[in-house]
Amino acid sequence: MATITKVSPLAPAAFPDLPAIDGVRFATVEAGVRYQGRTDVMLAVLDPGTSVAGVFTRSKTRAAPVLDCQAKIGGPSEGPAAILVNSGNANAFTGHYGQTSVAEVTQAVSKATGVPVERVFTSSTGVIGEPLPHDRIITQLEVLKSGFSRHAIEDAARAIMTTDTFPKGASAQVEIEGKTVSIAGIAKGSGMIAPDMATMLVYIFTDAQVDQSALQTMLSAQTDRTFNCITVDSDTSTSDTLLLCATGASGVDATGNSAFAEALERVMLDLAQQVVRDGEGATKFLEICVTGAASDADAKVHGLAIANSPLVKTAIAGEDPNWGRVVMAIGKSGAAADRDLLSIRFGDILVAEKGWVSPEYREEDAAAYMKGQDLVISVDLGLGDGSATVWTCDLTHGYIQINADYRS
Amino acid sequence: MATITKVSPLAPAAFPDLPAIDGVRFATVEAGVRYQGRTDVMLAVLDPGTSVAGVFTRSKTRAAPVLDCQAKIGGPSEGPAAILVNSGNANAFTGHYGQTSVAEVTQAVSKATGVPVERVFTSSTGVIGEPLPHDRIITQLEVLKSGFSRHAIEDAARAIMTTDTFPKGASAQVEIEGKTVSIAGIAKGSGMIAPDMATMLVYIFTDAQVDQSALQTMLSAQTDRTFNCITVDSDTSTSDTLLLCATGASGVDATGNSAFAEALERVMLDLAQQVVRDGEGATKFLEICVTGAASDADAKVHGLAIANSPLVKTAIAGEDPNWGRVVMAIGKSGAAADRDLLSIRFGDILVAEKGWVSPEYREEDAAAYMKGQDLVISVDLGLGDGSATVWTCDLTHGYIQINADYRS
Repeated sequence: MATITKVSPLAPAAFPDLPAIDGVRFATVEAGVRYQGRTDVMLAVLDPGTSVAGVFTRSKTRAAPVLDCQAKIGGPSEGPAAILVNSGNANAFTGHYGQTSVAEVTQAVSKATGVPVERVFTSSTGVIGEPLPHDRIITQLEVLKSGFSRHAIEDAARAIMTTDTFPKGASAQVEIEGKTVSIAGIAKGSGMIAPDMATMLVYIFTDAQVDQSALQTMLSAQTDRTFNCITVDSDTSTSDTLLLCATGASGVDATGNSAFAEALERVMLDLAQQVVRDGEGATKFLEICVTGAASDADAKVHGLAIANSPLVKTAIAGEDPNWGRVVMAIGKSGAAADRDLLSIRFGDILVAEKGWVSPEYREEDAAAYMKGQDLVISVDLGLGDGSATVWTCDLTHGYIQINADYRS
Repeated sequence: MATITKVSPLAPAAFPDLPAIDGVRFATVEAGVRYQGRTDVMLAVLDPGTSVAGVFTRSKTRAAPVLDCQAKIGGPSEGPAAILVNSGNANAFTGHYGQTSVAEVTQAVSKATGVPVERVFTSSTGVIGEPLPHDRIITQLEVLKSGFSRHAIEDAARAIMTTDTFPKGASAQVEIEGKTVSIAGIAKGSGMIAPDMATMLVYIFTDAQVDQSALQTMLSAQTDRTFNCITVDSDTSTSDTLLLCATGASGVDATGNSAFAEALERVMLDLAQQVVRDGEGATKFLEICVTGAASDADAKVHGLAIANSPLVKTAIAGEDPNWGRVVMAIGKSGAAADRDLLSIRFGDILVAEKGWVSPEYREEDAAAYMKGQDLVISVDLGLGDGSATVWTCDLTHGYIQINADYRS
């Protein structure tokens, strides 16, 4: 397995200072699941009454821990809850053995922590098709139990990394009825040396009190505008998992509160964009704003067609204002478009309109713009009110190097 | 514009020996549309009564010549017909000027050759968003007229190349009622140095006599199994055009003849596979056979999901038997799949079955297989009778180099 030594050029300067969330404690350990000399298991325990919502990969070949989590979300919400995550092995495409591993781990966590087994959620990320050495995790549970801390969320973010080049965290605080409610989340994703596919795991915690079904509804809607609007390479993981836990420890009921919903969406978007910024081989961060589409759904189809086009992504890597490839991607997306109504901007530069290059367009202006690290492409379809924004990174030799040059 | 000097390692040893098709003559010329020192315009004229069928890109931003051809296919079939193709400029996303250029060229061809304008078909391939210098083409029509030959199909194949690394041709002959009917075709596609998207042009000629509507029905069905089953990078051109011309000069009515249909499909598949073999940066040719799907349509969705996955394509490039990425691609495709019923083979090697790696699988066998140049991945879904085969190439540093490292 190759080692990534270089941090993404798009990484934030430092891990952010995240607020401790009342009602959540973290512990991490070196279990040696696959990696040596680093933590690879994190355990979070959540106070009784915590609402847990989740969204998961839609893959039809999803991993055993994902199936187990999906079966448990929306179930009984009494008692405490727990989340255990290991890196190094995805426990995906491991047949019946995979389900056995999940059962062994969740039962052991339940026994060690007193959390009812139907409230123990697990995720696994790393190599697929190899049996999870679950005993290595189970034997560390006593060590984990002795190490819980309210302040160990950065340690947790590091323990779930696979080939990520930096740990990812984000937070927000919002005043509700004179009290402060906090949200803090961590994510991993998009570093994928052989032999894995992109695996994105996200855990977000808040001390707000939110009814489980309201939490789930909010999470699903916001996922569509955040994590479901990012792409590195169009390949969907068998393990994608996002869990959102509301402990209620603040005593503030945020069910239906719009300020809380907005703060949560900011945290989700921040984490989602950090995943893109750690995209394999990424050297440019690209925002694609689509407006004037026949519907919001159409706008997203266009945005993702542009974001997933290898020709657009390589043009970005080459700092080439190749707007013809944007036209191509719009044309192939399948969503409604009219060649003669659409307009395209690179940053503030109007590139194309009325079915042709804009009369005031100067190639040298766009070429200068493309040298930036954070780029915006705006497309207006001129058809209706539909809009969407998606985020991606460029496609570089670094991507090929990570995924082709090394053997699993 | 970068120059491609190296021929694809997957190229055939030589251009094939194609039979002359009675009723078709070709001429080529150096018009200097964009390239210098090579032919860049080909003109084919077809005897009166020739049936012309066509299939075209579904892009919503398709080029002016495509729109013009689509409007003419299925129209009056009296009189001769003509096809003019230029390389170097795609006349795509060129607004009203693009339509003017098509009108100027088709009217000039009509005047020069006596072919009714509604039977003059044109294609353009090359840079997009720049006005087609149609006068350069029109001034060469007299030269073209003086150079017609029944035997110049290879010259025609060369004149339509853009960044292709080899000219592409294929043929078949079939006995019908004791007479020989011939089919010969040429194609260009998949070499795309900046600033173009993949542009695939295909022209197939036969001396069979086939009713236009029957020809169109056959062509559309066969395109779905041939050209619509290949992919280099999932990006769809604004100019894709396939024209099939049946001159009837053999005097043999092949309407509804199954031997003829099979021969035509072989020619189409041969040309389609040559396009893949000239895929940008390609070093491996990959056939993906999907069986046991819920439907043929589902099988094709799975096949294309595997063929378009950057992670599968980079694994092939790295000679890595990374079957987990195949599982991932099946899972994300959206078509029906059951993790525990599918099986995967690399060549004859059973890799995965029953939701896990096969017990007899040995990584070293698959690793040795992956060193080959022509590879087959077979997937059986275990669900039904649906099947499909698709073809693609690997994703290498060569692709990035061609599309990112050079400016347009």
